[in-house]
Amino acid sequence: MCGNLGRMSARAPDPARRSERSRRAILDSALLLCRARGYEATTIEAIAAEAGVGKQTIYRWWPSKGAVIMDALNEAGVASASFSDTDDVRADLRRQMTSVVRLMNDAQFAPIYRGVIAATQSDPGLAKALRERVIAPRVTACAERLRRAQQDGQLRPDVDLETLVELLYGPLYYRLLLPARRLDRALVDTVLDVVLTGAGLAGA
Amino acid sequence: MCGNLGRMSARAPDPARRSERSRRAILDSALLLCRARGYEATTIEAIAAEAGVGKQTIYRWWPSKGAVIMDALNEAGVASASFSDTDDVRADLRRQMTSVVRLMNDAQFAPIYRGVIAATQSDPGLAKALRERVIAPRVTACAERLRRAQQDGQLRPDVDLETLVELLYGPLYYRLLLPARRLDRALVDTVLDVVLTGAGLAGA
Repeated sequence: MCGNLGRMSARAPDPARRSERSRRAILDSALLLCRARGYEATTIEAIAAEAGVGKQTIYRWWPSKGAVIMDALNEAGVASASFSDTDDVRADLRRQMTSVVRLMNDAQFAPIYRGVIAATQSDPGLAKALRERVIAPRVTACAERLRRAQQDGQLRPDVDLETLVELLYGPLYYRLLLPARRLDRALVDTVLDVVLTGAGLAGA
Repeated sequence: MCGNLGRMSARAPDPARRSERSRRAILDSALLLCRARGYEATTIEAIAAEAGVGKQTIYRWWPSKGAVIMDALNEAGVASASFSDTDDVRADLRRQMTSVVRLMNDAQFAPIYRGVIAATQSDPGLAKALRERVIAPRVTACAERLRRAQQDGQLRPDVDLETLVELLYGPLYYRLLLPARRLDRALVDTVLDVVLTGAGLAGA
């Protein structure tokens, strides 16, 4: 009997590994379905069926469809938050903002991100999760890069750095979310030119 | 018989007036329901019932719930597009942007506007209507005000004015639509300070 139990235990899947496999399958299925059907038409039921798990497994880890899809986008790792740190703050910002513009034009990413942001308009819990997991870490990373430039005397000391982040990214989100002209790299150059000049950078 | 018909005709409601009365009732009911239940929970069926018309009457004039609600918001006349035209371009912009901030904080307006913008993320027809009826006229009005300042030599001649409009309003929409800090008048002052300085305005 003891031997038998021992063999069963050795063959049984490790619960932690099984959990991770289910979690991964749910996140992959969420993105797959969003890409095939769009954010709106993707349901928790369909994600569960595609991932081969029960609905209750999804609801154990996430409160809503929007929360699953947001985590899936975030873990896809495409939305890089990192800034290079050369002597040239303008070039460092330009590199990161250009990668954001590429992502905001990516047909595999942008419509899903827009779907998540749309859902936050009527889902305060999802808005909180978006702030904590996606927006805040990126705002902090950008403000840190700007802070080094400000400490080096390259930027005016009296400009609030978190607000400066919004002045840089606000126009990008404006073109992502409002029916405006196409979001392109030329916008990044104009934003950097006007905003960094206004923030005191010489020769921006 | 002829006299009878004449009286009936005199008593019968004028079709144009009746149409206008129905249209007005539909728009008023749309806003009333959005304020009571939120954008998401408001349906064409409920708007029709509240307005005392059939669903088909609504669909004769509007293609979707979002389109009715957008027209209702727009006709409520609260979203003023007008700019004053004094010698002081900064003061003229500040006056208009402050009224936009007030509107974006108005509990009777902002959640409905956010609902409409959310709906445009998956409804290209509504996005087109939002651009044509709401966004474009306001961008044009602001660009015209900036053009006069540019022609007077107050702003750099090399900055594209429509992009400059986006640099001014992008940060406001960022705080309206993303889970960020509270949208307040201090943001307007920082935006005007940094963006207008960067665009060449002396003493901005």
